[in-house]
Amino acid sequence: MRVKHKPWAKEKLQNYPEICISDPAQHKGNWQKLFGNDHPIHIEIGSGKGRFVSGMAEVHPEINYIGIEVVESVLISALDKVLEKDLSNVRLLSVDGALLEDYFAPEEVARIYLNFSDPWPKKRHTKRRLTNPKFLDIYQNILAKTGEIHFKTDNRGLFEYSLQAFSAYGLLLTYVSLDLHNSDFEGNIQTEYEEKFSQKGFPIYRLEAQFDREQQKL
Amino acid sequence: MRVKHKPWAKEKLQNYPEICISDPAQHKGNWQKLFGNDHPIHIEIGSGKGRFVSGMAEVHPEINYIGIEVVESVLISALDKVLEKDLSNVRLLSVDGALLEDYFAPEEVARIYLNFSDPWPKKRHTKRRLTNPKFLDIYQNILAKTGEIHFKTDNRGLFEYSLQAFSAYGLLLTYVSLDLHNSDFEGNIQTEYEEKFSQKGFPIYRLEAQFDREQQKL
Ligand SMILES: C[S@@+](CC[C@H](N)C(=O)[O-])C[C@H]1O[C@@H](n2cnc3c(N)ncnc32)[C@H](O)[C@@H]1O
Ligand SMILES: C[S@@+](CC[C@H](N)C(=O)[O-])C[C@H]1O[C@@H](n2cnc3c(N)ncnc32)[C@H](O)[C@@H]1O
Repeated sequence: MRVKHKPWAKEKLQNYPEICISDPAQHKGNWQKLFGNDHPIHIEIGSGKGRFVSGMAEVHPEINYIGIEVVESVLISALDKVLEKDLSNVRLLSVDGALLEDYFAPEEVARIYLNFSDPWPKKRHTKRRLTNPKFLDIYQNILAKTGEIHFKTDNRGLFEYSLQAFSAYGLLLTYVSLDLHNSDFEGNIQTEYEEKFSQKGFPIYRLEAQFDREQQKL
Repeated sequence: MRVKHKPWAKEKLQNYPEICISDPAQHKGNWQKLFGNDHPIHIEIGSGKGRFVSGMAEVHPEINYIGIEVVESVLISALDKVLEKDLSNVRLLSVDGALLEDYFAPEEVARIYLNFSDPWPKKRHTKRRLTNPKFLDIYQNILAKTGEIHFKTDNRGLFEYSLQAFSAYGLLLTYVSLDLHNSDFEGNIQTEYEEKFSQKGFPIYRLEAQFDREQQKL
């Protein structure tokens, strides 16, 4: 994602402290309290300009959404969408996904969304991929026992890698589509990247996975 | 596969009893003896007209190949290729893959190839898919502990199903390509169906999997 230098980004985020949470570690274990309800917490890591997280929040008022995006000047666009749609069930964090255990208690999260994560195609950057075992350790820790990872991407190499990494980790694949836009999946909310790459004719890959192998859907 | 009525098929197969084994149950546990060496046994289930099994046998004289194809009039074409290339490391069986435990002893097979298996797209035919758990039971039984399944297909639905079925079964995915012909995989031998469908512009999907999770390649 091309990032313009926006010195006012931090300031704008600070102007909406009830949406852009500046001290997420303080809410560890208490996110539902912050939302003021007992709805499940779904987080998106790398939410970019926020079309997905705001679109999902609009359709699912019964879920609490947290969009996590490390680049502040990008998160601004997500904030704009939350304000425009006047959503009360979205919070935004400008933090690194590698540190999520500092911000969420074990089993606090019901679902993790990864959408069009940076592919890091070079072998020496494997560890930066958000579906790498180091990240899976973190996800397993913060996810509820029945929690799920929902991942979509246009990037073939990243999807191939992720299928193997999930398999090696022992995750159970409960859904796989190798061409989401020509499948019978319902309720898809497109992300900014998804629109861009599917318009170029690339197939969109999507999977759902869970750590708990007891409750198989298949 | 369109099957022409060829009454002379059985007769022709019978004319080459050293290649087309008519009583495979008698060789259960003794296939290497039949080949007259101690090379690993690789089988292909649904080998059709035999381009793959004969092509592999040509390149890999250090492997014993057994092509398994239930339709005799199709197996004839495989026989022709084996004769033409004068291959000593191929045998052909006209049997149903569902009965492989009658023909192979536990752990007798080092690798199973599934190429462009019939997709059986209807839900009520799921059990006929060669990657269905019933078949995985059979494969696990006849495969050596370090044995592998190598599967390729152009059929998206079958590949999506198989990824989930393998995951649910606990198989380890050690290789996945979602576009084999645009990957860096080397030594690919095309099958008849592969040529046909890749020429139409469809991507070819390919995976390798193993039951033994101890020896992870990743
Ligand atoms: C390719 S963009 C996709 C954005 C959006 N999900 C979409 O589909 O349009 C990936 C985003 O993930 C963010 N990102 C990458 N690694 C991250 C990490 N470790 N923690 C939080 N965000 C991250 C990047 O800053 C970038 O905005
Ligand atoms: C779609 S064709 C593909 C043939 C060849 N592998 C190729 O790629 O060109 C599938 C073949 O599998 C055979 N087949 C299907 N089920 C089988 C079974 N249970 N046992 C043996 N052969 C089977 C069919 O008769 C057919 O010839």
